[in-house]
Amino acid sequence: MDSNFTFINGEYIPFGQSSVHVSDLIIQRGYAVFDFFLVRERVPRFLSDHLDRFIHSADLLDLHLSYSKEELAEIVAQLVAKNDIRNSSVKIILTGGPSTDDFTLSTDKSTLIVINKPFEVKWPEAWKNGASLITAKYQREVPEAKTINYIRSVSLSQKLAESGAAEVLYTDRNWVRECSRSNIFYVKDNCIYTPKTKMLAGVTRKRILGLKSYCIQEVDFKINELLAANEVFITSTTKGILPIVKIDSKIISNGKIGVVTNGIKKEIELS
Amino acid sequence: MDSNFTFINGEYIPFGQSSVHVSDLIIQRGYAVFDFFLVRERVPRFLSDHLDRFIHSADLLDLHLSYSKEELAEIVAQLVAKNDIRNSSVKIILTGGPSTDDFTLSTDKSTLIVINKPFEVKWPEAWKNGASLITAKYQREVPEAKTINYIRSVSLSQKLAESGAAEVLYTDRNWVRECSRSNIFYVKDNCIYTPKTKMLAGVTRKRILGLKSYCIQEVDFKINELLAANEVFITSTTKGILPIVKIDSKIISNGKIGVVTNGIKKEIELS
Repeated sequence: MDSNFTFINGEYIPFGQSSVHVSDLIIQRGYAVFDFFLVRERVPRFLSDHLDRFIHSADLLDLHLSYSKEELAEIVAQLVAKNDIRNSSVKIILTGGPSTDDFTLSTDKSTLIVINKPFEVKWPEAWKNGASLITAKYQREVPEAKTINYIRSVSLSQKLAESGAAEVLYTDRNWVRECSRSNIFYVKDNCIYTPKTKMLAGVTRKRILGLKSYCIQEVDFKINELLAANEVFITSTTKGILPIVKIDSKIISNGKIGVVTNGIKKEIELS
Repeated sequence: MDSNFTFINGEYIPFGQSSVHVSDLIIQRGYAVFDFFLVRERVPRFLSDHLDRFIHSADLLDLHLSYSKEELAEIVAQLVAKNDIRNSSVKIILTGGPSTDDFTLSTDKSTLIVINKPFEVKWPEAWKNGASLITAKYQREVPEAKTINYIRSVSLSQKLAESGAAEVLYTDRNWVRECSRSNIFYVKDNCIYTPKTKMLAGVTRKRILGLKSYCIQEVDFKINELLAANEVFITSTTKGILPIVKIDSKIISNGKIGVVTNGIKKEIELS
């Protein structure tokens, strides 16, 4: 992995030496956004959607982005070609850049970092028959932007590992928002529901909303509605469509992977 | 400034080359805590209090700290001696360290960064007759820890600069918590009040609570109580005791610096 290169503000740096100066607002104030996508057989997946979201995240934080969408795509293409890894991931980060007083955001500075590493999608065997979630009370700040602030999520990583659950589901005064790194859906009486507001709009979520052959509604709902669902699943770039059969101690429906989930999974993963 | 050194995990690095690897959780997930204090005439101010708070912040985020309080004090002393700056600031940062999956917190890794830079306390002339605050709805996450997550605060930095106000006051469903980088106090009928919960306990705040000659209460209160105060002031490491005479468009009392504020200011700043 140390032979791979990282793109940092126009330069290709060996991964082992890829670092950010301490005066950058990402270090001083956690001020940065990112996006993350897979590269399969050397081809970035859903690049356009990820770059659109990345640019939107940067806008929401008033970050200065000196590259157009086309230039970003070109940077990704060149980095992926240079590193020449069959299956990999790309993380693209935009920071507030160096700040003279370690606080004020500059209108014309930022740091663009593009990291490309080997990545093979692999699920734990235990998730084969459906995975479980644990819940935590939390509302992400600036929920529509993919900021680097995962303090709550990382804090819970030990508890998550011990529980064997796939993800932490965030609820805010009983409203269901999203998981820490996935979107959530439920199926009830042949319609599919997913939260509409105060969460990050995932790229896999967007693809599901585009399926014409299903009844799908974006609507905010509470945890009791989710627990009474016929089927539940979560979606993310690395997890694809992951069936959920248990939330905390509550078994969803009969505890088996449902037919609608399986249908969606087939349509999305074959596309 | 580039001739100064930074301490990073046991090494002294010239400031210009002081950087953090991109795999560190401070960059991947904004996962880190810090503290900040002044060094006047080469002597760190209230070092013990700042180190206590730093260690408490690290605990709250389950961060691995491989140095004792005494060792941290020794690192600070050596760095300050080495850089030999008359008046300076010290920022001490503890990160989640490198993570193999860019997410999971290691139980035995972290990065300790100590930055020492020239720093002269200087207030804008406009604050001489009392400063103003603007308000924003916000509740900090993990409010008792000094995490690096200042996304809300930095986002507001442009608005703050344009307003000429000294600070942003955070309120959550009308409860007054703290300013973005200061604590808040008000005086009413010769008693002093400051919020008790869901905020960072400042070192200057602690010193005021220790003054025996005043009636001082830690108690949560709402914004309407603050606006009806006789006097308001904020406290921080760099601002000391800063009188506040206006909050948004509301003038506090007669718009002049009050006698209790002046008394407290004298006691604290001479001590």
